[in-house]
Amino acid sequence: MLPRSYDNQNCSIARTLEYVGERWSLLIIRDAFLGLRRFDEFQESLGIARNVLTDRLRRLVGAGVLVRMRYQERPVRYEYQLTESGRELSVPLLALMHWGDRHLGPHEAPRVAEHTGCGGEVTERHLCRKCGALLGTGDVHTRPGPGQRAPAHC
Amino acid sequence: MLPRSYDNQNCSIARTLEYVGERWSLLIIRDAFLGLRRFDEFQESLGIARNVLTDRLRRLVGAGVLVRMRYQERPVRYEYQLTESGRELSVPLLALMHWGDRHLGPHEAPRVAEHTGCGGEVTERHLCRKCGALLGTGDVHTRPGPGQRAPAHC
Repeated sequence: MLPRSYDNQNCSIARTLEYVGERWSLLIIRDAFLGLRRFDEFQESLGIARNVLTDRLRRLVGAGVLVRMRYQERPVRYEYQLTESGRELSVPLLALMHWGDRHLGPHEAPRVAEHTGCGGEVTERHLCRKCGALLGTGDVHTRPGPGQRAPAHC
Repeated sequence: MLPRSYDNQNCSIARTLEYVGERWSLLIIRDAFLGLRRFDEFQESLGIARNVLTDRLRRLVGAGVLVRMRYQERPVRYEYQLTESGRELSVPLLALMHWGDRHLGPHEAPRVAEHTGCGGEVTERHLCRKCGALLGTGDVHTRPGPGQRAPAHC
């Protein structure tokens, strides 16, 4: 949580940004959606300083967006998983992705959101263009799009 | 645009955050949606240093999210208005607002998104709960909600 900066703001956007608006935080959450779990995986993907990553992960756990789970005893090792509230951040993340695809061109979409059920393309409002269903956060995944290139980041 | 930080990221989320992910930037855009136009209005709403606000406005104009318009000749005065691409940021902003309302409680919503046409409540995916329409960015406004208190910020 950012220290006090938005304290005088009676606003759910400002409150949300206190928790996830810090530099890198939304990209850590994006990587968690892509299946990354372990500190070294996030570090390799993002290329940020380890102390910064440690701090951001700690804050996201504190915000209830990620949960820290022990996956090995000797030596003790932890991984990070999205909570239910963390998974609901797919809605603003997809909206930011679509906005970038539309307005920061010319470039082709590095990733495309897809309806897991029917394979249709999903709009920024979680509407399937193929079957017309309005989808829940668990019904959508992303796959490499026409603009994908190595190294893939999202 | 943040200097180079996400350059190695082939990702439309990261690219979008380069433009609007800086501290305060999304709150400036939120205030523009609420009708604020002038430097002093943003400064009063956000309570940030004038040099920081100057920098953020300049970047948002450079990103094509805001446009700077002269509204007075003597002395010369400018105001800032959302562009078409800026108005499309209402989708991720509303999604962030709804996420905060749901997960950062207990608190009541300071503002509620409403379908301009029928007055129905609007979900984070721009679906009207009353008439069932899937709405465009121009069909939605926000109004004070049950958690509104002075000073109102969003």
